[in-house]
Amino acid sequence: MDLRELIDLLPTGAVLTYPDVLAGYRQDWAKDPAAGTPLAVVRATGTADVSTTLRWADEHRVPVVPRGAGSGLSGGATAVDGGIVLSTERMRGISIDPVTRTAVAGPGLLNAEVKRAVAEHGLWYPPDPSSFEMCSIGGNAATNAGGLCCVKYGVTTDYVLGMEVVLADGTAVRLGGPRLKDSAGLSLTKMFVGSEGTLGVITELTLRLLPAQPVQSTVVASFATLTAATEAILAVTGALRPAMLEFMDTVAINAVEDELRMGLDRDAAALLVARSDAPGDHAAQEARIMLEACRAAGATEAFHTADPEEGEAFTAARRYAIPAVERLGPLLLEDVGVPLPRLGDLVTGIAGIARRNDVTVSVIAHAGDGNTHPLIVHDPADPDETERAHRAFGEIMELAIALGGTITGEHGVGRLKKAWLPNQLGPEVMDLTRRIKDALDPHGILNPGAIL
Amino acid sequence: MDLRELIDLLPTGAVLTYPDVLAGYRQDWAKDPAAGTPLAVVRATGTADVSTTLRWADEHRVPVVPRGAGSGLSGGATAVDGGIVLSTERMRGISIDPVTRTAVAGPGLLNAEVKRAVAEHGLWYPPDPSSFEMCSIGGNAATNAGGLCCVKYGVTTDYVLGMEVVLADGTAVRLGGPRLKDSAGLSLTKMFVGSEGTLGVITELTLRLLPAQPVQSTVVASFATLTAATEAILAVTGALRPAMLEFMDTVAINAVEDELRMGLDRDAAALLVARSDAPGDHAAQEARIMLEACRAAGATEAFHTADPEEGEAFTAARRYAIPAVERLGPLLLEDVGVPLPRLGDLVTGIAGIARRNDVTVSVIAHAGDGNTHPLIVHDPADPDETERAHRAFGEIMELAIALGGTITGEHGVGRLKKAWLPNQLGPEVMDLTRRIKDALDPHGILNPGAIL
Ligand SMILES: Cc1cc2nc3c(=O)[nH]c(=O)nc-3n(C[C@H](O)[C@H](O)[C@H](O)COP(=O)(O)OP(=O)(O)OC[C@H]3O[C@@H](n4cnc5c(N)ncnc54)[C@H](O)[C@@H]3O)c2cc1C
Ligand SMILES: Cc1cc2nc3c(=O)[nH]c(=O)nc-3n(C[C@H](O)[C@H](O)[C@H](O)COP(=O)(O)OP(=O)(O)OC[C@H]3O[C@@H](n4cnc5c(N)ncnc54)[C@H](O)[C@@H]3O)c2cc1C
Repeated sequence: MDLRELIDLLPTGAVLTYPDVLAGYRQDWAKDPAAGTPLAVVRATGTADVSTTLRWADEHRVPVVPRGAGSGLSGGATAVDGGIVLSTERMRGISIDPVTRTAVAGPGLLNAEVKRAVAEHGLWYPPDPSSFEMCSIGGNAATNAGGLCCVKYGVTTDYVLGMEVVLADGTAVRLGGPRLKDSAGLSLTKMFVGSEGTLGVITELTLRLLPAQPVQSTVVASFATLTAATEAILAVTGALRPAMLEFMDTVAINAVEDELRMGLDRDAAALLVARSDAPGDHAAQEARIMLEACRAAGATEAFHTADPEEGEAFTAARRYAIPAVERLGPLLLEDVGVPLPRLGDLVTGIAGIARRNDVTVSVIAHAGDGNTHPLIVHDPADPDETERAHRAFGEIMELAIALGGTITGEHGVGRLKKAWLPNQLGPEVMDLTRRIKDALDPHGILNPGAIL
Repeated sequence: MDLRELIDLLPTGAVLTYPDVLAGYRQDWAKDPAAGTPLAVVRATGTADVSTTLRWADEHRVPVVPRGAGSGLSGGATAVDGGIVLSTERMRGISIDPVTRTAVAGPGLLNAEVKRAVAEHGLWYPPDPSSFEMCSIGGNAATNAGGLCCVKYGVTTDYVLGMEVVLADGTAVRLGGPRLKDSAGLSLTKMFVGSEGTLGVITELTLRLLPAQPVQSTVVASFATLTAATEAILAVTGALRPAMLEFMDTVAINAVEDELRMGLDRDAAALLVARSDAPGDHAAQEARIMLEACRAAGATEAFHTADPEEGEAFTAARRYAIPAVERLGPLLLEDVGVPLPRLGDLVTGIAGIARRNDVTVSVIAHAGDGNTHPLIVHDPADPDETERAHRAFGEIMELAIALGGTITGEHGVGRLKKAWLPNQLGPEVMDLTRRIKDALDPHGILNPGAIL
C-alpha cells in the first residue's frame, strides 16, 4: 500500500511508520500473540485528521483500528496486518461548564485527567475503571467502561450526553449535546457507546457530571469461605445501595499483600471492600448496616473506617489486584457477569473449572453488580498449560451464559471473546448486529475482526 | 386488503374491524386531524401475536403502527390509512425480583401499575411522566419518556436493562437482561429505547429499580417576572441536585387554580415547585438552600413543607397543568429543551413569539433539566388563528435549535415534529438514521411517517 497520499493529506509527523514505533502499537493490555503488524500509525491531531484518514482508508479498503490508550483487555485495539492504527492520544482538549454540569472532552484524555479537570470545579465524573490512570475517555466510551462506582452510579453510557463521531466514510457527525433530555430521533449517541470502534471513531465527548462526592465510609471484611463472602454481598446489596462493593479471593489478596504489605489477612478465602457516600452521618449508618451484614454472613474479621485515606488505601489495593496477580505469570483476563443471586454459583463454579483444568484462577470482582474478573495465570512457554488455560477461559464464559449472565460486563468483546458472543446473543441478534455494521461500514474497514 | 389470513393466524377476537372501534384507535393525545383510518386493530395477547402480525404485514407490505396507551403528544401512534394498529394493551404481565432489583414487565402495563407493583416490594421505578396514570411502560420505552424526577434520576433509558423486541420481519429477539453491566456486543437495547416504534415492537421490558424513595421536602415559590423565576432555577441547580424542579407560568397557574382551587397565587408570573429526597435532615437542609435561592432571585412568596401530602398536592397541581390548560381550547403541544443557561432566553423568546403571532402560549416546564412544554391554545375552527398557532409552533422549535437545544426533550418526534428534525440533526445524521431504519425495516412497514 502506498502511503504517500495519506502522508500528504495529514499534518507533518502524523503518520508514523518506524518499525519500533509500530511495535508499540500492535497490542493492547491483553497482549494478544496473534496481533498483526500495522502499515502505519496515524496520530490524529483533531477531527479533520480522523476524517481524512477514514476517507482515504475507505476508498482504498484499508482496515483501521481505532486506539485510545491501549489499556483494553479483550484485544479490541489489536493491530491488523496491513492496516492503520488510528490513535487519539493527541486529541486532549477539555472545557467544563459548571452551570450545565457538563464537560466537552477530547477522546485522548485519560479518565484520571478528566476527573482531575472537573474536580477543580467541584464536580465529579463518576465512571472509574481500575485503569483510570491509564485509559482514555474515548476508549471508555468505546467499551462502555465500568469500574468500582457502577454499583451505585452506573456505567459510562449513563454519563455520555453527546459526541462527535467520524463514520467509516470520513463523515463527521454530532450527536446529542449538553442536555439531560433529548428525544429527537434515534438514540444514536447510546448506540456508538460500547461499539468498540466498529461503527465510527469518537472524536469528542459531551459528558454529564455530578457534584463532587461527599466523604466516604469504608468497610473491610474477611471471610473463611467463598460462600460466606457471596452471602455477605447479597445481604449488603439487599439492605442498601453501596457506593462500592469489591471482592478479592485469596490468590489476589496474597498477590497484593506481596507487593503492598498493608496487612491484609493472607489466610482469608475472600476479602470485601465496601463504601458508602451517603451524606453526613448516613455514611456511618450505612457502614454499620454493611458491617452487620458481613458479620451475620460469618466474616472472620470486619471493620469500618471513616478515614478517607485509609479507605482509599483499601480501594487502591483492590485496584492493584490485576497488576499484582500478573506478577504470578501472564494472564488470560475474564470479565464475566451474572445476575447477583447467581454470583455464588459462578464463583464456586470457577473454582471447579480451575481444579479440573489444573490452572490457577484468581477471582476479583465488582461484586455489587455481579461482574467478576477471573484471572487465569499461565505460562505461554508451556503449550500444555496454555491449552488448559484457554479451555478454562472458554468454560468460564459458558458457565456465565448458563447462569443467565454475560461474557463481558465491561471490557468488551474485542477479538478475544468474539467466538463466544453468538452463544450468548443467539443467531438473530448476531444477524441484527451484522445488519447495523454493514449499514454503517459497508466496506468493513472499521476495526475488522472485533466483535464480529 | 384481505384480512382473513391474519384473522385465522391470530387468537379469536384479536383482530377488530368495527368502524367505531377503529375510530377510537385513530389518534393519540395529540389529536392529529390528519390521522388515517386503519384497516384493523390487532390487540396482541403476547409476543407470538406480535410476531405473527409483523410477519404477515411485512409479507403483504402493510404498514403497522405500534400503540401503547395512546397518550403520546407528537402523533407517534397516529393511525395510517390501510394500516394495522398493533396494540399492546393486553400484554400486562409483571414479575419482580427484589434481589436483583429488577422487574420484567409486559409493554401494556401502565407506568403507574408498574410503580404500584414494585412498591409492594419496597422498590421504586423512577421515571414519572405526568401522564403516569395513563401511559404504558412500552410507550415510555418507545419514546424514552421523561418526567418530573429526571433532573436527578434520569430518563427511561437509564432504567431499561433489557427487552424482548419483535423486528419488522416478525423475528423476536432478546436484548440485555437483569444485569447492571453488560458489554457483550452493540448497545442494541439502548438503540430501541426512543425509536418510537420505527425499528421494532417492544414485547417485554427488564427494568432496573431503586429502593423506595425516602420522604421528601417540598418548596413552592412564586415570582413576579419570568426572569426572576429562571434565575432561581439556575441558582437551585447550581447549589444542589433537586429531586424535582418544575415551572408553571401565569396562564397555567390560573388554569390549574380554576380547576383545583388550592390557593395558588393568581398574580404570579411564574411558580416553581421543587423537591428534595435527601435522607433524614438533609432534605430540610436542601429545602432551606432552595428557599434561599428562590428568595435571593426575588421570589414574592416562598415556603417549604415537609408534609408529604401537601408536597404531593403541589406536584399533582403541576402534573395537572396540561389537562387544565386544555380547557382553554385545543392545544398544540411543544416539548422543546435547551441547555439550562439558555432557559431564560427560551422562555422570554417564547413570550415574544406568542405576542407576534397573537396566540396564547402557556409555558410549563421540567425546569431543572431545561425541558419546557409551551402549550399553544388555538381554535381549530378559526383558520387564521390555526395558521398563527402553527407558525408559532414552528418558530418555537427554530428558537430552541438556535439556542443549542432540541425540538423534543421527552415526547418524541412522531409525525408532528418530523418536519423540523433535519434542522436540528443535519443531513448527515438524517442519512445515518435512514440507513439504520432501512437495515432493520427494509420494506418500511413499521410506523411509516414517524420520525422519518
Ligand atoms: C489494570 C487494568 C484494570 C482495568 N480495570 C477496568 C475496570 O475496572 N473497568 C473497565 O471497564 N475496564 C477496565 N480495564 C480495561 C480498559 O482499561 C478499558 O476497557 C478502557 O475503557 C480502555 O480504554 P483505552 O483508552 O485504553 O482503549 P483501547 O484499549 O485503546 O481501546 C479499547 C477499544 O476501544 C476502541 N477505541 C478506543 N478509542 C476509540 C475512539 N476514540 N473511537 C472509537 N473507538 C475507540 C478500540 O478500537 C478498542 O476496540 C482495565 C485494564 C487494566 C489494564
Ligand atoms: C397530560 C399528559 C402529560 C404528559 N406528560 C409527559 C411527561 O411528563 N413526560 C413524558 O415523557 N411524556 C409525557 N406525556 C406524553 C406521553 O404520555 C408519553 O410519550 C408516553 O411515553 C406515551 O406512552 P403511551 O403508552 O401512551 O404510547 P403511545 O402514545 O401509544 O405511543 C407513543 C409512541 O411509542 C410507540 N409505541 C408504543 N408502544 C410501543 C411498543 N410496545 N413497541 C414499540 N413502539 C411502541 C408508538 O408507535 C408511538 O410512536 C404526557 C401526555 C399527556 C397526555
